[in-house]
Amino acid sequence: MNETPFRVINVGIPTFGETLRQQGAHVADVDWKPPAWGDPALIEYLERLEQPAVDQANAQVFERITTSRPHLVGVARASEVVPGMRPGVILHAGPPVSWEQMCGPMRGAVLGALIYEGWADTPAAAEEVARSQVEFRPCHEHDTVGPMAGIVSWSMPVFILENKTFGNRAYCTLNEGLGKVLRYGAYSREVIDRLKWMEDELGPALGRAIQESEGLDVRATIAQALHMGDECHNRNKAGTALFLKWIAPYLAETTDPGTASRVMRFIASNDHFFLNLSMPCCKAMMDAASNVPHSSVVTTMARNGREFGIRVSGTGNTWFTAPASSVRGLYFPGFGPEDANPDIGDSTITETAGIGGFAMAGAPAIVQFVGGTVHDAFAYTRAMYEITVGEHPVYTLPNLDFRGTPTGIDVRKVVSTGILPHINTGIAHKLAGVGQVGAGLVNPPREVFIKALTALAEYLRG
Amino acid sequence: MNETPFRVINVGIPTFGETLRQQGAHVADVDWKPPAWGDPALIEYLERLEQPAVDQANAQVFERITTSRPHLVGVARASEVVPGMRPGVILHAGPPVSWEQMCGPMRGAVLGALIYEGWADTPAAAEEVARSQVEFRPCHEHDTVGPMAGIVSWSMPVFILENKTFGNRAYCTLNEGLGKVLRYGAYSREVIDRLKWMEDELGPALGRAIQESEGLDVRATIAQALHMGDECHNRNKAGTALFLKWIAPYLAETTDPGTASRVMRFIASNDHFFLNLSMPCCKAMMDAASNVPHSSVVTTMARNGREFGIRVSGTGNTWFTAPASSVRGLYFPGFGPEDANPDIGDSTITETAGIGGFAMAGAPAIVQFVGGTVHDAFAYTRAMYEITVGEHPVYTLPNLDFRGTPTGIDVRKVVSTGILPHINTGIAHKLAGVGQVGAGLVNPPREVFIKALTALAEYLRG
Repeated sequence: MNETPFRVINVGIPTFGETLRQQGAHVADVDWKPPAWGDPALIEYLERLEQPAVDQANAQVFERITTSRPHLVGVARASEVVPGMRPGVILHAGPPVSWEQMCGPMRGAVLGALIYEGWADTPAAAEEVARSQVEFRPCHEHDTVGPMAGIVSWSMPVFILENKTFGNRAYCTLNEGLGKVLRYGAYSREVIDRLKWMEDELGPALGRAIQESEGLDVRATIAQALHMGDECHNRNKAGTALFLKWIAPYLAETTDPGTASRVMRFIASNDHFFLNLSMPCCKAMMDAASNVPHSSVVTTMARNGREFGIRVSGTGNTWFTAPASSVRGLYFPGFGPEDANPDIGDSTITETAGIGGFAMAGAPAIVQFVGGTVHDAFAYTRAMYEITVGEHPVYTLPNLDFRGTPTGIDVRKVVSTGILPHINTGIAHKLAGVGQVGAGLVNPPREVFIKALTALAEYLRG
Repeated sequence: MNETPFRVINVGIPTFGETLRQQGAHVADVDWKPPAWGDPALIEYLERLEQPAVDQANAQVFERITTSRPHLVGVARASEVVPGMRPGVILHAGPPVSWEQMCGPMRGAVLGALIYEGWADTPAAAEEVARSQVEFRPCHEHDTVGPMAGIVSWSMPVFILENKTFGNRAYCTLNEGLGKVLRYGAYSREVIDRLKWMEDELGPALGRAIQESEGLDVRATIAQALHMGDECHNRNKAGTALFLKWIAPYLAETTDPGTASRVMRFIASNDHFFLNLSMPCCKAMMDAASNVPHSSVVTTMARNGREFGIRVSGTGNTWFTAPASSVRGLYFPGFGPEDANPDIGDSTITETAGIGGFAMAGAPAIVQFVGGTVHDAFAYTRAMYEITVGEHPVYTLPNLDFRGTPTGIDVRKVVSTGILPHINTGIAHKLAGVGQVGAGLVNPPREVFIKALTALAEYLRG
């Protein structure tokens, strides 16, 4: 036996300490990583970006995010309200991507949209149209967000959210439910029929009801849902119930009983319905905080199923992209990791605005859907305070003594700490036409933050 | 400086340790209290009750509580369904109490009920009727529970809950909302008018909607609400939203649009609406577990505003009572502890069934309403595992790694540990006619458990 054991402080890689521990030493592990993944060039960029102008710009961005008050003010066809929506344009999730580069589920959703619009009769004909006649554009560049494939076409009804503080608007399609749905790349008859019903009955009924109301304060609804176990990305059970509680009386007053009851049942049967309000709320907040010179705050995180892209306030509309990651997931029976498409969708706008994966400490029940433990859920939120500008004054987490959600991802902090944003997400089958196969947890590729930091540093020198 | 400090283990009262600590000793405090508050007679009773027959009976009681499946199956007037409801009978919360002994808010509610029923025109006339012509009976002895004053009279609509496992039924009036309401002792014109509207429009509309449905599994709804930040006693925001989400389509289908919209707005405007479903659900569970010989499990905790009463499965319908405690509360503006009536109402049936104050670890946001800290909320639930038989297999708490709620208060454990049940509650003004003044936290008087333990021990000897 070693009677005078060494006392060791082990900094960094824990296995070094473990080896000493096995030889009888007392070892205290310090969880330390070299900043900026030990890259001297990045450390130099970080030093260059440690300046008051960046801090002040980030403070302004944080102020704009947290004072934004998006309200639901209507429902209309995309063609009527989405800027730049023309016949032949189809919007998709994530950074720009061509038909040739598109992943399976996004292609499937495009085929479905073309058949739904009557621009093609068969999947084969739709493929030809997609290849030669469609202009594909990112939702994010049209004030819009779309979950998963994020396909938005001419006739689809969209929610209209208006930022009452800054006047900007954001749009999102209506949530179709689970199972075989367009956003997961399915395009069978039932998918098209449901989209038609949403266009003909659901959208107009909701539009009439909202017109009768004074609009819904979506920020306030999210704040309530965060006290009710939602994180408003993959858990929207409370948000959906609160939305239906709000709109049900207006529906009863403005729509015939048969339609009202069908619309209510459709919403009541889909606990994710509120996602498509949470997302444009976050989009309206983040768009209001875009294009602030010098700011290193991330205003967009989005994936097209091939690439993960971010945009940063101080670098405007430039996308910084890298290959999308695989999701660590829980799979539906009969499916596994080999079926999964890489990370896809605009729904990471929720994490960009500080909820979703960033608010999992308030939504511990979500681990039954996306995996991990309750301890992880708390740890994810705590870690996100390390990489964000501040705490949202309205979005609070009772489980953390009502601390505000971690808001405003600072590219500098991500690179200096090496801590990547925590995202939770649905998982699409990698082939067109199948649909959702699970849900899980994922981090963005570090390269997008390295590219953004580099560009910002170069920009500030220039 | 003391170079060889004493190392002390201090058992019990912490101030002893503090004194030594100030003198430089290393003190480890052990949180120990003498069992049964140090009373030798109680320790003897406890020893007598440590027998397999009691354990087996408690296991059977636990099984009956946790396999109970109460469903909402209808709404009817109390006169049509509540057993023993006769003209001239008025039911009240808590153990039996006479008009002479009644507290202010319960008297106020009785006056309101008599005017509502048309049995008196004025408060003065109603007082005369109450004194001479009314037979007062505890709700609990009529398969019924009532929040706060708990007044149930002939014409009031009640929810009908049926325990699908054991066939027993439980009843509860419909929640009136907050502010000036009968259950808090208010009896002004607006209170009576609202009760009339509930009788004429709300009750029948809900009854038609429920008839059209297959009934609501209230146990399953509570299980969901517990994952959504409710503890289903003083926080019923999720339960109310889930209830409205469920019933809205049936309302639209069975009622004219004007009525449907008024009914929906009434429910949507009152986050406590679900309390009056949570309570009879718990009542149906606990009634199914009553009258099991030898069991030391509490089947009723209820207060009439003067006395706190419990009943225990193994001693049947006998009440064990002691003066009701004051509530440690948060008060509405303009009110304070001097305005508060002592603890009142049947809503402690929720804690009796293992939710409410026992499930506060799942409802941290409730501390904004009832006081205390988030840390307290977790500690309350953890402490309740010390005095209960087991963990509910269906009611789980994500915050505690999905541990089941602490279920089935064992009188033996309460007395041996000295840990009293944690209850959260509304606070009524002590005078008739005022209403709610706050909400807070309270424990039952220990005497009720001492009396019950004594009776059970005597009974087992006899």
